[in-house]
Amino acid sequence: MPTAEIVSVGTELLLGQIVDSDAAALGQVLATCGIDHRHRQTVGDNLPRLVDALRLAMSRADLVFTIGGLGPTQDDLTREGIAEALGRPLAVDEEFAARLKARFEERGWPWVDSQRRQAMRPEGAHVIENPNGTAPGLACRVDGKTLIAMPGPPSEFLPMLHGPVEKLLRAMVPEGTIHSRTLRVVGLGESLVEVRLHDLLDSHSPSIATYAKPGEVHIRLTTGASSVEQAEAIIAPVRHEILERLGDVVYGEDDETLEQAVVERLRSFGQTLALAESCTGGGLGARITSVPGSSDVFLGGVVAYTNRVKQSLLGVDAETLIDHGAVSFECAREMALGVLARLGATWSLSITGIAGPGGGSTEKPVGLVYIGIAGQGHVEAAEHRFSGSREIIRQRSGQAALTVLLSKLR
Amino acid sequence: MPTAEIVSVGTELLLGQIVDSDAAALGQVLATCGIDHRHRQTVGDNLPRLVDALRLAMSRADLVFTIGGLGPTQDDLTREGIAEALGRPLAVDEEFAARLKARFEERGWPWVDSQRRQAMRPEGAHVIENPNGTAPGLACRVDGKTLIAMPGPPSEFLPMLHGPVEKLLRAMVPEGTIHSRTLRVVGLGESLVEVRLHDLLDSHSPSIATYAKPGEVHIRLTTGASSVEQAEAIIAPVRHEILERLGDVVYGEDDETLEQAVVERLRSFGQTLALAESCTGGGLGARITSVPGSSDVFLGGVVAYTNRVKQSLLGVDAETLIDHGAVSFECAREMALGVLARLGATWSLSITGIAGPGGGSTEKPVGLVYIGIAGQGHVEAAEHRFSGSREIIRQRSGQAALTVLLSKLR
Repeated sequence: MPTAEIVSVGTELLLGQIVDSDAAALGQVLATCGIDHRHRQTVGDNLPRLVDALRLAMSRADLVFTIGGLGPTQDDLTREGIAEALGRPLAVDEEFAARLKARFEERGWPWVDSQRRQAMRPEGAHVIENPNGTAPGLACRVDGKTLIAMPGPPSEFLPMLHGPVEKLLRAMVPEGTIHSRTLRVVGLGESLVEVRLHDLLDSHSPSIATYAKPGEVHIRLTTGASSVEQAEAIIAPVRHEILERLGDVVYGEDDETLEQAVVERLRSFGQTLALAESCTGGGLGARITSVPGSSDVFLGGVVAYTNRVKQSLLGVDAETLIDHGAVSFECAREMALGVLARLGATWSLSITGIAGPGGGSTEKPVGLVYIGIAGQGHVEAAEHRFSGSREIIRQRSGQAALTVLLSKLR
Repeated sequence: MPTAEIVSVGTELLLGQIVDSDAAALGQVLATCGIDHRHRQTVGDNLPRLVDALRLAMSRADLVFTIGGLGPTQDDLTREGIAEALGRPLAVDEEFAARLKARFEERGWPWVDSQRRQAMRPEGAHVIENPNGTAPGLACRVDGKTLIAMPGPPSEFLPMLHGPVEKLLRAMVPEGTIHSRTLRVVGLGESLVEVRLHDLLDSHSPSIATYAKPGEVHIRLTTGASSVEQAEAIIAPVRHEILERLGDVVYGEDDETLEQAVVERLRSFGQTLALAESCTGGGLGARITSVPGSSDVFLGGVVAYTNRVKQSLLGVDAETLIDHGAVSFECAREMALGVLARLGATWSLSITGIAGPGGGSTEKPVGLVYIGIAGQGHVEAAEHRFSGSREIIRQRSGQAALTVLLSKLR
């Protein structure tokens, strides 16, 4: 399996003015081509550091990619860096320069001589055409290794990556792919998932990795193989074993989100949902309605941010609010029952809690959240204690509400 | 000026499954602290490669940061990597382990012994508390250099970065800063902003850059100086000139969001807000209630995803729905009036539209959205045509609703 390394070039990356989404996109392509991506380096627009980074990369990887630094201005140094790292002279490709100038004239763009920098290339390097910009990519072979330089703007980078570069990589690695499946878990923490899968985690084909995501755990099974079909065949028995062991805490696979799983199950049962939200302010409704077609199952809801709205639109009893407060088992239950009756849904969820940073007390601290569910003749509520920022507490509240509904839909 | 290097750890970074937004956020903090960020390395969950990367970083930077690999599982290798790179023994901090276990018990989370890995630290390393997760950060001094390890999940990383780590950096670099101010604009596009500021854009001290953000434009003024006060003095006259030229399309500065500006203005007038949302499904309510203290001005709302809910909870006329449909000026007006009356608010906003990808027609295409506003004895609605994904159409709808309310609050 060939190894690869990326050298991302640009001071704006180090200053954090942009995130390196190009490198992530290239990483995905390398994985699907079955190329072992081991290192990434990021350097600013600084020639000596770029040359050092390229030498290090060429010393340890079969395939080296640079991203960025190919534009016409003085701080675009990647061409110089490659020439110096490889010890090859840099010269203007006059034929390319003439074509570039003709393109400027054709479009009525003003030509300045610095544009000629984009026609420079180290001896032996080939041009990779860039239909979406003026700076071409470059490819060269050195001592059995390959170096590929690509422009940084995503509108130029991505078409070059998914066009000529991917084609080139497929030709270099005619056989082989790295393929992943992801199992998505709610209701069981990462450590407990590991305990249940402990003896499987040393597996190499497929390799198994767990990732803690907000309110859920993802289990990724990855293998290299000569085709996606073969990879699926390698993954299948391990996937099956994990599904057996974890049972229905696995709610979905690959890109399926928790809200998609909930909408899909409601749809398959022909059931509907209504919401009564307090501290989440509408966030759970927004999450459910992010799923296209959610209107088949989602009727709507009430955002009851004040006690008065809890009474007027949801019918929560004034005495409940006086005796137990809005953040209580009792209020969560009455909110769920109120919205269920008013909207005539199969199921309803309610959320009432203290998202902070203010509003907490010793008795009812920030992070205390009650989640109610009503439907099928039953109503119940559960207490949760979340920690973290206001945003996290609200996100976790929605996650917990979807989790309890999903458990009823199994 | 001290130099810094980041080592980002995680196979999912190399596979391109996530972009390294953490490293970008840290890069921004380094810039504002006047620290020279020269290199970033990214390695997978692989101990020898991590150790090599750390040794290289420690050899050339004064400050080395690691991001990721601090969780409880077997592929979390950063603690081991640091211990090996520094040649220091790794041991469990029993006091921390006991505190961690107590925290699990308090919250009723199941404890497994692998959690103890998170209490391990290399000799001489200090704990950086992590209130948003179980894995603490680590800081240690080695031969006059500093190594700081932080957890990877952004919900844990960002609060640690902007809290204890930034404080530590500020203490290390008392002199020198790169300082920015941002002016935030709604209701004027980027090109028109540029036209109005044309002669100012070549300024170097401060430099001026415009950024198109979803539904708004940000103008960033940046300068280097020996102190924040000096930087503010350099920025002040240019900032004043821009405010003069743009007038009240500038709704806020720096980190102030549009929803914060709306909440703040409502609060200053002692006014309240209610919402009637259809296609945004609660997203505008979630956005307003993301502002701490929004309960002072936000009463709540109705998510009316179906026509029946629009009638039953908002009092929209059946004839309106038959004659004009739910996506119409008339329905937006009645939704706004209905929620205003039922909740007794000073202002109400309504949103009804077609977010797609399905549900569009020639007459009413995807992206057609009506936004209503009622209050102070008036009601009005406006038609918008947004393009883009379901997510973008919903986001723009909320942005347009907040923009129209803000215009009433000026």
